[in-house]
Amino acid sequence: MQMAPMVEYADAPAEVKAVYDDIMTTRKTDWVNNFWKILANHPPTLARLWQDVKQVMGAGGALDPLVKEMLYIAVSVTNNCDYCIHSHTAGARAKGMTDEMFGELLAVVGLANQTNALANGYRIPVDPQFLPNGGAVIEPASLGELDFTDK
Amino acid sequence: MQMAPMVEYADAPAEVKAVYDDIMTTRKTDWVNNFWKILANHPPTLARLWQDVKQVMGAGGALDPLVKEMLYIAVSVTNNCDYCIHSHTAGARAKGMTDEMFGELLAVVGLANQTNALANGYRIPVDPQFLPNGGAVIEPASLGELDFTDK
Amino acid sequence: MQMAPMVEYADAPAEVKAVYDDIMTTRKTDWVNNFWKILANHPPTLARLWQDVKQVMGAGGALDPLVKEMLYIAVSVTNNCDYCIHSHTAGARAKGMTDEMFGELLAVVGLANQTNALANGYRIPVDPQFLPNGGAVIEPASLGELDFTDK
Amino acid sequence: MQMAPMVEYADAPAEVKAVYDDIMTTRKTDWVNNFWKILANHPPTLARLWQDVKQVMGAGGALDPLVKEMLYIAVSVTNNCDYCIHSHTAGARAKGMTDEMFGELLAVVGLANQTNALANGYRIPVDPQFLPNGGAVIEPASLGELDFTDK
Amino acid sequence: MQMAPMVEYADAPAEVKAVYDDIMTTRKTDWVNNFWKILANHPPTLARLWQDVKQVMGAGGALDPLVKEMLYIAVSVTNNCDYCIHSHTAGARAKGMTDEMFGELLAVVGLANQTNALANGYRIPVDPQFLPNGGAVIEPASLGELDFTDK
Amino acid sequence: MQMAPMVEYADAPAEVKAVYDDIMTTRKTDWVNNFWKILANHPPTLARLWQDVKQVMGAGGALDPLVKEMLYIAVSVTNNCDYCIHSHTAGARAKGMTDEMFGELLAVVGLANQTNALANGYRIPVDPQFLPNGGAVIEPASLGELDFTDK
Repeated sequence: MQMAPMVEYADAPAEVKAVYDDIMTTRKTDWVNNFWKILANHPPTLARLWQDVKQVMGAGGALDPLVKEMLYIAVSVTNNCDYCIHSHTAGARAKGMTDEMFGELLAVVGLANQTNALANGYRIPVDPQFLPNGGAVIEPASLGELDFTDK
Repeated sequence: MQMAPMVEYADAPAEVKAVYDDIMTTRKTDWVNNFWKILANHPPTLARLWQDVKQVMGAGGALDPLVKEMLYIAVSVTNNCDYCIHSHTAGARAKGMTDEMFGELLAVVGLANQTNALANGYRIPVDPQFLPNGGAVIEPASLGELDFTDK
Repeated sequence: MQMAPMVEYADAPAEVKAVYDDIMTTRKTDWVNNFWKILANHPPTLARLWQDVKQVMGAGGALDPLVKEMLYIAVSVTNNCDYCIHSHTAGARAKGMTDEMFGELLAVVGLANQTNALANGYRIPVDPQFLPNGGAVIEPASLGELDFTDK
Repeated sequence: MQMAPMVEYADAPAEVKAVYDDIMTTRKTDWVNNFWKILANHPPTLARLWQDVKQVMGAGGALDPLVKEMLYIAVSVTNNCDYCIHSHTAGARAKGMTDEMFGELLAVVGLANQTNALANGYRIPVDPQFLPNGGAVIEPASLGELDFTDK
Repeated sequence: MQMAPMVEYADAPAEVKAVYDDIMTTRKTDWVNNFWKILANHPPTLARLWQDVKQVMGAGGALDPLVKEMLYIAVSVTNNCDYCIHSHTAGARAKGMTDEMFGELLAVVGLANQTNALANGYRIPVDPQFLPNGGAVIEPASLGELDFTDK
Repeated sequence: MQMAPMVEYADAPAEVKAVYDDIMTTRKTDWVNNFWKILANHPPTLARLWQDVKQVMGAGGALDPLVKEMLYIAVSVTNNCDYCIHSHTAGARAKGMTDEMFGELLAVVGLANQTNALANGYRIPVDPQFLPNGGAVIEPASLGELDFTDK
């Protein structure tokens, strides 16, 4: 059961209303989802998280917004976060994720969890070819025409 | 320290050599990375995992191979798998991931781990708008023009 | 709520029906559990996972099938996977796991999660006696008559 | 780097020496591994954990001590605990775990981590057949001749 | 669904009743919560865990009991344990945790999960200034007047 | 190995220098730790995270800064983040955490990880007494004189 009450718009203090307004304006919607209505119990966290989300998930960066939603799903599945799996899958659907893409996404997430366990279990040492050059950008040429690695 | 010895090509039984050959042919490389050389201690696992990787990570699906590598990194960071972070970051670099893309990828992974904890900690109930319709494909229209959700 | 619909036998494409048939034949049952009916939304994942499970969990290996089920439960509890805890506990019960065995299994899983946290928190260095010899098989004699270790 | 110094026998207070003595007597060895020498920085935790380990991991229960060691490894791999993977693999080796058994163990752990992610990602509902009867012992007959389940 | 039945006081064997009595006496309550009633299916685990809890969570140590409850919540949120989040939040509330404190607690837990992912993802090496001196107590003076670190 | 180079002050762009300056001013130190020097590869993440840390970890809230550092350690140990365990333990030491307090902290973290696994493994249902009243503040009186709960 939820650990704090929903803070509805009508009952919200001004600082919370301001964040709600910005959420709805930014998203072009007329509602605010539960995540924000519960974070609003601690207004500084509400304001901070909304700024985080606007900065990280918005358009205009090097990654496509749909790719970011899928990365979010990959993390949320690995952590088994019910709310986040639902909200970000809805978000990815709204941005164009098809059934086929969702199926492939979960296949990758499942496989990665499997090989993570095998690599950790065998304590496999990293190949020198995979090491960044002194922390600098790795030299792709040294990997040949890798279609895919590790894996 | 690694929990099993590397199985080098020269010393490998025929079933292992066959997998190594297919790895090198598929990837157009002349070397096999440590993951496979240690899995080779249990040949059925070696053969099975290679088939898994070929099927899931190869080209031709609905997701771009670079996106799949980045999803792999997102899971591996969340699970803190040293080997997999290195190998799949090298793989993503080889497929075109720039410094900027890597920076954004880790920003999303960090943010997702933060909001996963907040959503789990507050036990936030899923909004009806995010629920798939009886398990069927969600209706994107019901989400309005969401630029991004939850998040 | 489930993220994809159940694919029932009557509505399934031929490639899915073939997997369902093999599941029922292999298990000598007349039903297919939800895991497969939802994986069937992505037929290549359905087929691949069923091959994985047949290979890994079947009889004839060095580990008893009941031991494998209990290992599966140990992982599933640690990851807090509701579906997997239920399905593999049912599977282990069907193979002979008693209440007493289940109680001991969870006691070990609880203790291991406790000592994992303590060992990680104190960053305890591995004793040389526990290191595999160059990745080769460890020499049991060097451990004396250990009744149990680490721990 | 380790977060606290090793407490060596010669320098240990009497309450710590008493635990060390019991560890060596119980295990029939003449040394104490690092886990205990670092826990000894907090003597009540040292004494409590040693009692936990003696009770849970000792012989005489419904599970074979080697099975318990393998369950411990399964948890430790899933949590990526370097110290515990090494110490319990050494312990399992000393109790008879072969290379083949270790390979199968890690194959199960890898597979379970994969299906955990898939079951969590798809939010798969538990089949009624897998539900314990009111929390009582499940009726194995209702599962038919399951060779293995979920999975 | 719960995996074992509740063991009610009236039906409990003597060894279980003795633990229940001690729980109620220690806590000055007239009821026993579900955690213990289900652990009672394996009496040695019930008795052991109750001793663990009494030793670790009781008053009289260097940490305030409320701080310990909050640490417990931090771990339980990170592991997404529904039962433990509820029970320890109730426990912390009973010891004086306010809404504001709970909000700050979850803000720290969320932030820590974010920076853990970033530090693991970038594989950031530990600064020499943060290393304990040979495992001995770190010299705070070397950190200057740090208001807060890492972070 | 670190996945990106350190950005040293002398080579940093102005926006990064501004953050470094604020870090050193706020902390009254003359150095910047590696976490920030590597985040500086993605300046928006550097600036955002520093604002996060200043807001969440600074003084003036309802929780003592030392308590916040200990909560940070509890999460970092559970996630096995090497960098964060070291940096926040150093930070807690600088704020007054004694050996005894650190020992108790890890004892709580270990115990919580154990009971999380047991509660998740048995799928223990939450007692009605622990449920928040409709998401509102729980009524402590209903818990009697609990010295500590769950547990």
